[in-house]
Amino acid sequence: MDNRAIGIIDSGLGGLTAYRELRRLLPQENLVYFGDTGRVPYGSRSRETIQKYAMQDIRFILRHHVKLVVAACGTISSTITPQAVEAIGLPFSGIVRPTAQAACQATRSGRVGLIATAATVRSGAFGRAVEELGGPGVRLTAAACPLFVPLVENGFVQPDNPVTELVARQYLQPMVEAQVDTLILGCTHYPLLSQTIQRIMGPQVTLIDSGREVARWAQGFLAGHGLLAQREQPGTGEFFVTDSAEGFIQVAGLFLQEGVEGRVTQIDVEAL
Amino acid sequence: MDNRAIGIIDSGLGGLTAYRELRRLLPQENLVYFGDTGRVPYGSRSRETIQKYAMQDIRFILRHHVKLVVAACGTISSTITPQAVEAIGLPFSGIVRPTAQAACQATRSGRVGLIATAATVRSGAFGRAVEELGGPGVRLTAAACPLFVPLVENGFVQPDNPVTELVARQYLQPMVEAQVDTLILGCTHYPLLSQTIQRIMGPQVTLIDSGREVARWAQGFLAGHGLLAQREQPGTGEFFVTDSAEGFIQVAGLFLQEGVEGRVTQIDVEAL
Repeated sequence: MDNRAIGIIDSGLGGLTAYRELRRLLPQENLVYFGDTGRVPYGSRSRETIQKYAMQDIRFILRHHVKLVVAACGTISSTITPQAVEAIGLPFSGIVRPTAQAACQATRSGRVGLIATAATVRSGAFGRAVEELGGPGVRLTAAACPLFVPLVENGFVQPDNPVTELVARQYLQPMVEAQVDTLILGCTHYPLLSQTIQRIMGPQVTLIDSGREVARWAQGFLAGHGLLAQREQPGTGEFFVTDSAEGFIQVAGLFLQEGVEGRVTQIDVEAL
Repeated sequence: MDNRAIGIIDSGLGGLTAYRELRRLLPQENLVYFGDTGRVPYGSRSRETIQKYAMQDIRFILRHHVKLVVAACGTISSTITPQAVEAIGLPFSGIVRPTAQAACQATRSGRVGLIATAATVRSGAFGRAVEELGGPGVRLTAAACPLFVPLVENGFVQPDNPVTELVARQYLQPMVEAQVDTLILGCTHYPLLSQTIQRIMGPQVTLIDSGREVARWAQGFLAGHGLLAQREQPGTGEFFVTDSAEGFIQVAGLFLQEGVEGRVTQIDVEAL
């Protein structure tokens, strides 16, 4: 039993898909969410800049009383170095391994697709994980979708939005051509576009939601190590952001089915 | 005569449209460009965050030997406070007044449109400038186009790009309905979409390019105050960015008709 919180870091809002799933699976856990809304998006920046920002984000979340750090962001997860993970000194998971694991289990044909940010695709991290976990029978086809995050952050998320549809058809063309039967949504923003993506890919393709998979991994990890919280009342949820709390409160409703008013604090991550 | 450089600050790449025009109009001037590519875009962030970032940007450019500071960014220009401008202690211009001035001179019907980032529209700065410079006969209709900057930064700039066309038709609808005869491109990224915008608005509408107008203003200001540089050889151009120099060098070609290799330095603006 361990009543310390689970720390979640993200480049902005996308990680709220993981937060929502953690809250659903582990209602008794305290959750501390950090979203770098003042510097989002990470996925179009260079590796060095992403690594620098990720270290600042981790340094912040470690100031809280956490037992586990989850990087609920495809870009951080695929760009962080093993040295940085070791330096955390606590259990850690990004989305890459849990998501690759789920994809390897789901595929029947061995043709797995990955859509993610430019930085995530460039890193090759998903390809290495799929190769290790799925063996030689699984092959990954990857495509960067740099406009998906701006589309989500600007509210182009209705399943019938013609702009999103047009962009998605263009980005998903290589996935359709490769005849994948499993598609990894390698960025935690993408589940908000899943209806559009599913329609274009067809009902026979399994979408793997990275936010959900990392939450399931956390549940299994904490249970397996006797680290689940035990308390009478439901766990708390706290949010820290680098841009204004007001803006975050408004958009968080897109991701969560709960209001977050009064629980959001703006902080200066650069000053730490 | 003053051989110090002109300092140009921008949230990222858009200000290069002003750089290009300054280089064309004032070939003998040294230009120092700072683009906050590690934190772009500014236009979707809160006023407080934009003001904080702008102050850091200005602090950096003042470390160079400059005689004039130009904010070649609609979002910085419309969000900066008079106190911050005073604190610079040097001649300064954003794009708002030069651009509003040009629009007021160009309009015949008095119906002027503004397209810009969400932060710029929210600030009301262009409305106040047009009212002051154009008098009661000029009325401004404004619309935010939050997806234009991501479209440009991700290379959706071909005049026949169907995604850009679809987004632009949606954003420009209020401008068409208001029957504006003059349209301010209130963000220095937007000139890269001017062919698409012109086609949708029709040939009778005058587009006002904010990068060009602030460059013209700078030329007039320096000439009027005896501050033009005089040197035998052409002026130099130096670039400072907060994300990787490589990424900037690649995309800068979209904006400039000159290579910038060997003249781009990555710096840490947060550490200043």
